[in-house]
Amino acid sequence: VDQDETRRLLAAVAGGSLGVEAALDRLAAGPLQGYADLGFARVDLHRGLRTGDPEVVYAEGKTPAETVAIVTALREQGSERATLVTRAAAATVAALARSFPGELTEDGPTVVVGPLPAPRGTVGVLAAGTSDGPVAGEAVLTARAFGAGVERVTDVGVAGLHRLLAARPVLDRADCLVVVAGMEGALPSVVGGLVGTPIVAVPTSVGYGASFGGLAALLGMLTSCAPGVAVCNIDNGFGAGVFAARVARRVAG
Amino acid sequence: VDQDETRRLLAAVAGGSLGVEAALDRLAAGPLQGYADLGFARVDLHRGLRTGDPEVVYAEGKTPAETVAIVTALREQGSERATLVTRAAAATVAALARSFPGELTEDGPTVVVGPLPAPRGTVGVLAAGTSDGPVAGEAVLTARAFGAGVERVTDVGVAGLHRLLAARPVLDRADCLVVVAGMEGALPSVVGGLVGTPIVAVPTSVGYGASFGGLAALLGMLTSCAPGVAVCNIDNGFGAGVFAARVARRVAG
Amino acid sequence: VDQDETRRLLAAVAGGSLGVEAALDRLAAGPLQGYADLGFARVDLHRGLRTGDPEVVYAEGKTPAETVAIVTALREQGSERATLVTRAAAATVAALARSFPGELTEDGPTVVVGPLPAPRGTVGVLAAGTSDGPVAGEAVLTARAFGAGVERVTDVGVAGLHRLLAARPVLDRADCLVVVAGMEGALPSVVGGLVGTPIVAVPTSVGYGASFGGLAALLGMLTSCAPGVAVCNIDNGFGAGVFAARVARRVAG
Amino acid sequence: VDQDETRRLLAAVAGGSLGVEAALDRLAAGPLQGYADLGFARVDLHRGLRTGDPEVVYAEGKTPAETVAIVTALREQGSERATLVTRAAAATVAALARSFPGELTEDGPTVVVGPLPAPRGTVGVLAAGTSDGPVAGEAVLTARAFGAGVERVTDVGVAGLHRLLAARPVLDRADCLVVVAGMEGALPSVVGGLVGTPIVAVPTSVGYGASFGGLAALLGMLTSCAPGVAVCNIDNGFGAGVFAARVARRVAG
Amino acid sequence: VDQDETRRLLAAVAGGSLGVEAALDRLAAGPLQGYADLGFARVDLHRGLRTGDPEVVYAEGKTPAETVAIVTALREQGSERATLVTRAAAATVAALARSFPGELTEDGPTVVVGPLPAPRGTVGVLAAGTSDGPVAGEAVLTARAFGAGVERVTDVGVAGLHRLLAARPVLDRADCLVVVAGMEGALPSVVGGLVGTPIVAVPTSVGYGASFGGLAALLGMLTSCAPGVAVCNIDNGFGAGVFAARVARRVAG
Amino acid sequence: VDQDETRRLLAAVAGGSLGVEAALDRLAAGPLQGYADLGFARVDLHRGLRTGDPEVVYAEGKTPAETVAIVTALREQGSERATLVTRAAAATVAALARSFPGELTEDGPTVVVGPLPAPRGTVGVLAAGTSDGPVAGEAVLTARAFGAGVERVTDVGVAGLHRLLAARPVLDRADCLVVVAGMEGALPSVVGGLVGTPIVAVPTSVGYGASFGGLAALLGMLTSCAPGVAVCNIDNGFGAGVFAARVARRVAG
Amino acid sequence: VDQDETRRLLAAVAGGSLGVEAALDRLAAGPLQGYADLGFARVDLHRGLRTGDPEVVYAEGKTPAETVAIVTALREQGSERATLVTRAAAATVAALARSFPGELTEDGPTVVVGPLPAPRGTVGVLAAGTSDGPVAGEAVLTARAFGAGVERVTDVGVAGLHRLLAARPVLDRADCLVVVAGMEGALPSVVGGLVGTPIVAVPTSVGYGASFGGLAALLGMLTSCAPGVAVCNIDNGFGAGVFAARVARRVAG
Amino acid sequence: VDQDETRRLLAAVAGGSLGVEAALDRLAAGPLQGYADLGFARVDLHRGLRTGDPEVVYAEGKTPAETVAIVTALREQGSERATLVTRAAAATVAALARSFPGELTEDGPTVVVGPLPAPRGTVGVLAAGTSDGPVAGEAVLTARAFGAGVERVTDVGVAGLHRLLAARPVLDRADCLVVVAGMEGALPSVVGGLVGTPIVAVPTSVGYGASFGGLAALLGMLTSCAPGVAVCNIDNGFGAGVFAARVARRVAG
Repeated sequence: VDQDETRRLLAAVAGGSLGVEAALDRLAAGPLQGYADLGFARVDLHRGLRTGDPEVVYAEGKTPAETVAIVTALREQGSERATLVTRAAAATVAALARSFPGELTEDGPTVVVGPLPAPRGTVGVLAAGTSDGPVAGEAVLTARAFGAGVERVTDVGVAGLHRLLAARPVLDRADCLVVVAGMEGALPSVVGGLVGTPIVAVPTSVGYGASFGGLAALLGMLTSCAPGVAVCNIDNGFGAGVFAARVARRVAG
Repeated sequence: VDQDETRRLLAAVAGGSLGVEAALDRLAAGPLQGYADLGFARVDLHRGLRTGDPEVVYAEGKTPAETVAIVTALREQGSERATLVTRAAAATVAALARSFPGELTEDGPTVVVGPLPAPRGTVGVLAAGTSDGPVAGEAVLTARAFGAGVERVTDVGVAGLHRLLAARPVLDRADCLVVVAGMEGALPSVVGGLVGTPIVAVPTSVGYGASFGGLAALLGMLTSCAPGVAVCNIDNGFGAGVFAARVARRVAG
Repeated sequence: VDQDETRRLLAAVAGGSLGVEAALDRLAAGPLQGYADLGFARVDLHRGLRTGDPEVVYAEGKTPAETVAIVTALREQGSERATLVTRAAAATVAALARSFPGELTEDGPTVVVGPLPAPRGTVGVLAAGTSDGPVAGEAVLTARAFGAGVERVTDVGVAGLHRLLAARPVLDRADCLVVVAGMEGALPSVVGGLVGTPIVAVPTSVGYGASFGGLAALLGMLTSCAPGVAVCNIDNGFGAGVFAARVARRVAG
Repeated sequence: VDQDETRRLLAAVAGGSLGVEAALDRLAAGPLQGYADLGFARVDLHRGLRTGDPEVVYAEGKTPAETVAIVTALREQGSERATLVTRAAAATVAALARSFPGELTEDGPTVVVGPLPAPRGTVGVLAAGTSDGPVAGEAVLTARAFGAGVERVTDVGVAGLHRLLAARPVLDRADCLVVVAGMEGALPSVVGGLVGTPIVAVPTSVGYGASFGGLAALLGMLTSCAPGVAVCNIDNGFGAGVFAARVARRVAG
Repeated sequence: VDQDETRRLLAAVAGGSLGVEAALDRLAAGPLQGYADLGFARVDLHRGLRTGDPEVVYAEGKTPAETVAIVTALREQGSERATLVTRAAAATVAALARSFPGELTEDGPTVVVGPLPAPRGTVGVLAAGTSDGPVAGEAVLTARAFGAGVERVTDVGVAGLHRLLAARPVLDRADCLVVVAGMEGALPSVVGGLVGTPIVAVPTSVGYGASFGGLAALLGMLTSCAPGVAVCNIDNGFGAGVFAARVARRVAG
Repeated sequence: VDQDETRRLLAAVAGGSLGVEAALDRLAAGPLQGYADLGFARVDLHRGLRTGDPEVVYAEGKTPAETVAIVTALREQGSERATLVTRAAAATVAALARSFPGELTEDGPTVVVGPLPAPRGTVGVLAAGTSDGPVAGEAVLTARAFGAGVERVTDVGVAGLHRLLAARPVLDRADCLVVVAGMEGALPSVVGGLVGTPIVAVPTSVGYGASFGGLAALLGMLTSCAPGVAVCNIDNGFGAGVFAARVARRVAG
Repeated sequence: VDQDETRRLLAAVAGGSLGVEAALDRLAAGPLQGYADLGFARVDLHRGLRTGDPEVVYAEGKTPAETVAIVTALREQGSERATLVTRAAAATVAALARSFPGELTEDGPTVVVGPLPAPRGTVGVLAAGTSDGPVAGEAVLTARAFGAGVERVTDVGVAGLHRLLAARPVLDRADCLVVVAGMEGALPSVVGGLVGTPIVAVPTSVGYGASFGGLAALLGMLTSCAPGVAVCNIDNGFGAGVFAARVARRVAG
Repeated sequence: VDQDETRRLLAAVAGGSLGVEAALDRLAAGPLQGYADLGFARVDLHRGLRTGDPEVVYAEGKTPAETVAIVTALREQGSERATLVTRAAAATVAALARSFPGELTEDGPTVVVGPLPAPRGTVGVLAAGTSDGPVAGEAVLTARAFGAGVERVTDVGVAGLHRLLAARPVLDRADCLVVVAGMEGALPSVVGGLVGTPIVAVPTSVGYGASFGGLAALLGMLTSCAPGVAVCNIDNGFGAGVFAARVARRVAG
């Protein structure tokens, strides 16, 4: 994976400073150096190097102590990069605040530990309704943690087109759009008819009855008649934020 | 059900011209007079009287001969009312044309036998895409057969809003709208944000993959964020046409 | 959207009292005047003008304070129109009562703030079982708030046909029917065989097992063998009330 | 399983005419005597003795030759009992007619080979629409083959209640009812409100769109608000006929 | 519906003691006499006469007070017939016990108020696992309330066939079997291979993961390879008990 | 079932020490000896003899007292074999600990009562993420209770391949692999491309939105492009542990 | 929409060369100029100007003649831009070839009419299996038509990781990746663990049984444990190609 | 991956016969040597070495020519190992027979090219019904091609238990069982109650209506109450054969 390290190893073999069997062990063990074994979790320390993004901790189903331990292990690798924690219960957010005083940026259950990176490029995050706000918030903070600038527009559902049209300048400025909507999830189709910007659609579980926990919005977005729409999992503001930030950063060069 | 007939019967009992047991039999047998038993089908002859609409023959799964026989039985009750035949295969349409020369109005598999009624009120029928045309056609001809006038607009999907906005006068004139769309089925939501006209939404099976035979459009329409949208079965242009015609006729008074 | 306003603007340009760039800005900004930006929500102030209906606040997922703030913004636009709040938790209802003393009409979680409009036309609301009552109640109060008169019949399920037949006069009087049923949702089909009135069917989540949260009733209503039945989302008494009121008002002229 | 045979075997052991190991083998092999191994199928010869019903051959997915071979094996066991063949393609029906001339009773793809038993008790079979006829036909012929008398009523859907009410005498006479319906499948609920007879409901795949191949009718019947309704698989006229015949025969004593 | 009552009415008309219009009103109002309007519910007082079964109160979603009021209305019609209450919460059971001291027979959430009828015929109730017990209990008490005798066998799943085979005498004695099973729901198929008794299968929501709340058992029972199996809704011990009791009573003559 | 016992019985008949009818009774009653009837459950005492595995108690839906009673009945049959209790609530675990002091091995809700058997063969248990740990734990303790040795690897998801590759020696050593994963469930496919060991895949309900309670992982594993993957129910660590232990023990000879 | 055009119009009003009402008509009619009404379809002529992409014709469900007419209308607007036709039947491809000789680039049912644009940026298209080829081909040709360069890698499924690892240079070079896979759809997760490039995942309907027409792959991709994965509809190579080309073009600047 | 090859390479570096950069290239290129690039497919040549199994060609969706080309490429690597082709259309089987005369073993659409390996261990394959035969056949021939001996039992459904009990010796002899069943898929549960052998269950698409293409059987097997059952995809006889052969070979040692 890391060609330079392998080159040095091979040079050591060529130079006789490293035996064949030892080199064999090192090559086999190589990947082991990429994570820290905490017993209950193997923390991937090299992902940032591989992908250019920070490690992320999905806090749902983990105890506050486990989450803090994982974040601590990551922070010890180098505190200049931010660590993003998503779906953190209140107790977990509090535990992080105690462990990392003055280092947190919070948006409800989404938390960044450490300094936010300088923004490169612009992600536009649109939410169809007030109830879609938390998912949009997850996308906003994620995109910031992954290095993009963010502009946010709320409550621009398709049943009141003039509100959406008023947000046209934001749509035009963005390098990538995240469009969050529940219920029938029609917003990405309408936005996709207005602009040629790549659109990452996020269905939310907002709704009831035949929305089936976000299924209606999910299917609607997948079958959008507007091209240039790709879809993330229901309520997955995080995934959309990552995707959009990667696009925006690349466009910014 | 028919109070006049029952009143005459009771008067006959009171007058002694009809015995108690005979009256009892007549009351019990009353409903039997409402249909013609063709062996393979019981044709409901009184529905028109009950509901103000013509009888309809759903031709799918019936042989041409069966369909012709049913239509003939209905036409013999009184040829002034039109008979609507839906989902007729080409062979069935041909058989009807042979049996009722000069009496057919056709729109693909939808056929009206007999004179179309004078239009009362206006139904607007919108279709999102070219492929939704046949379902829209079924709605158009059905609404005409059920006594309403119809205005039709085609190919006004949400990904090109200006085409929809150009149809605004039709939206404003209609007493009831039928909005037909496949794929994500977002059109009724957008139309519902523009006008206060009652909207009957018809999902179509146009699409592929996650449209699951029209399920995506169906769920999208059911969970529309715009109020005043009610939904018919997938591809059910007939049901929407009946519903809208009934509304339009009532509004016309 | 508003042609008079645009006409005045153009006249000002023609008259020289308004510059080209200023007019351009005003045309672009036009839609912005249609809503009030509350920070957490964009309240659509012009919807009533566009659609003839009051704004509605869907309270589920909003805090009592947010709901009160939205209602207040709407009420400040002109208190002569009623504001409808649906799915309000008890705390939200209480907060509204404190903020708008003497102005509330309540039916469980459905609340109208301000005076109910004079009734035009008649909506008949039928519920199949006692358990369907809350959804029927939402339809009843919604139809009233949207300007129609309402007649309500409860507990007329298909397994006891004589109860339904006894409600025949209501069925005949109504300009539009809302038929609410859970479990197998057969009531709209039976009613649709009795009368030619447009029927808005509302499946409810009443039931268990294979009712799958209202799916059985939903599918049953969508595939009804009676024409003239259109369907709203599961438990969506609100949507059915809006739809039916719009029909009834139009029929009343 | 067969106590008499086992008693004789044990008596032979007690009498010394059968050794212990031989008896052990015979006990183990016992079940083997219950079927004929045709290579491609093990024909169960004792089922009739166990359950009081004839063997049935489900012809779908079998070649005409295979079906004829299985029927022949069964007929050779004793021709006094009828053999029922369901879902037979035309070629299979023709092959059976060649192999068993003069012995067939046919109803489309349902065929009885051999004499029909004398009827005991009465099964009423109702079909909601003309299109449900083939499934009703399978139920009718199956119930006859399984020993019950049958009365059949067709085209009595819920959207025309007077047709159903006219069939009341049949409903009252039957020992068990089979009610066949597609689309929303509401007929069993209405019938169940009229009579206290056990009702076996059969959903059919008649319909389109949200009927999802009979799923709507199936769910509707399972969640019927009328007690005393049990449901068979979609299009399973056979299973309903077996069930109803068993009830009717038992009631007849 | 009630021919004797109608005969008396007609005789009164013939005798002149009743005018035509008055008779017309009485005929129209006739069905109204069949229920008591409690405001929140229309209690069907004539169902017992129509179907031979007692009225049943489904207590889920009703308050204790509502349930007691309905039961009281029913008991006042004549206390010789039992009233069955199902899915009663503990508070409802307690309220019933206070209102009808000494008159309750309870099995968890299933309650009978009033004397149980003398048993006619025999229903066998089998449950596959311990966890299926409550559903089986609902079937047992329902069948008793509807007039049948009951034999109950528990914990006879297909993974231990010898336990099932030991229950063979019960299987043979029963006039109708209720077979209750969760998870894969295979028990009815195996029982159906052993006996020719009509089998009412009840899937339960026991299980997890791919049992999807009883869906796996439901589909399994519907597609059973054994004929003579009909299926009730998931967890619907009540419906199965009604069905089986009706069969058993008829067989008993 | 038990040939030796039957042989002795037959010998007794042959020797005259047992009469024919008594032997018949004994043969019929044989299966009855295989379980203990506790009233609320029939405990299968012979399963171990039949299958080579201990009895297992699925504690979900059982009271602590019921679970303890069942375990006690099993332990009284012979304490040398372990008893496995799964899905035990904390109160049930505590009750078991009180009843069987010093005899418990616990892993959260999974408990073994009595001595663990000596390990034969090796099962490798892999979990994709930290959140999948409890299901993996159920598999680990089950496989041990069923007689296999176990090696466990945690947190080796496909998004960090080097962690998986580092576990290669475990993959190579195992006689059978249990691979536990939620979300998209891709791990078994990747492992199946690396080794030829039989893989039992266990989807977990870890995830949200379109994971639909484990459905996404379940479908993914069932459609794996790698051959040699068989799948257990969602979250069914127990079933996978049993399966893998049986394979491992057989391989160990 | 088009500010320059509006500015000119307003200047004409200010200058008196255009009357107020005429300007009002022009503003209202503006959107009408954006499409050509072909009777059976409204061709959107301005989409390219709005979104920077060519018009696309989805040929499924259109006759060859209709498709040719639409393409002709588009080509007449200016032949320098390519027109993309997808899902064209063989007859449609032939008709296009006859109408536009020497202007077609074909990849099975995907056709470009007119010159391909110069490539900007690089899209990498990966397909898991040979059977996924057609969907990958649609993505490849679409991305080219939308202005990006493309590199294609085939048959790199997760069950043979070394084939995927060998494609690493392509993964590293691409500005955006399209990853196409059927069956369990695990490939995007594995690729997402290797690189930080935005990944557009396309599930295909390749598979059988529990793949349910691509549903398994769709759910798997939506729930991918790797961030930075967004998903298109099943078999929607077109949508993925559009999305990826837009990203790549923006990155290229 | 291949340690010996890597050891030799490192030794060459140590010995100076291979330069560092050349070794680096070789290490990087290593995986490339594992497949043959045929243009339309990358044939994995090393899978056999990695997993101990032959390469398999899934012929569905491939042309006869493509299938023959892939098989030829594989056979050229060394003809001593068999090549398995599944789901081959008749034309593909014929093309293979022409290309590899005298080398084919066929079972319908399943074909082995080249000599079958000597059998190690025993796989028992059971099919519930005649219609399940083709899937069972795929399992049988696959298991043979993967090196196991096979015993096959057909038509042993749960509705005739004595046929299954007669097959007991096969159940007892097998090292691993493949149990194939459609409809309700109950057979694995019953077999799992009889023996402690690992059971690989294969649901088939045999059935109709609520079997939903094998879904009923699939869910039934996944939720089996018998432990030790793992499940393959619907109709996936191949996967089950591979799995079972791997178990059987390992047990045989």
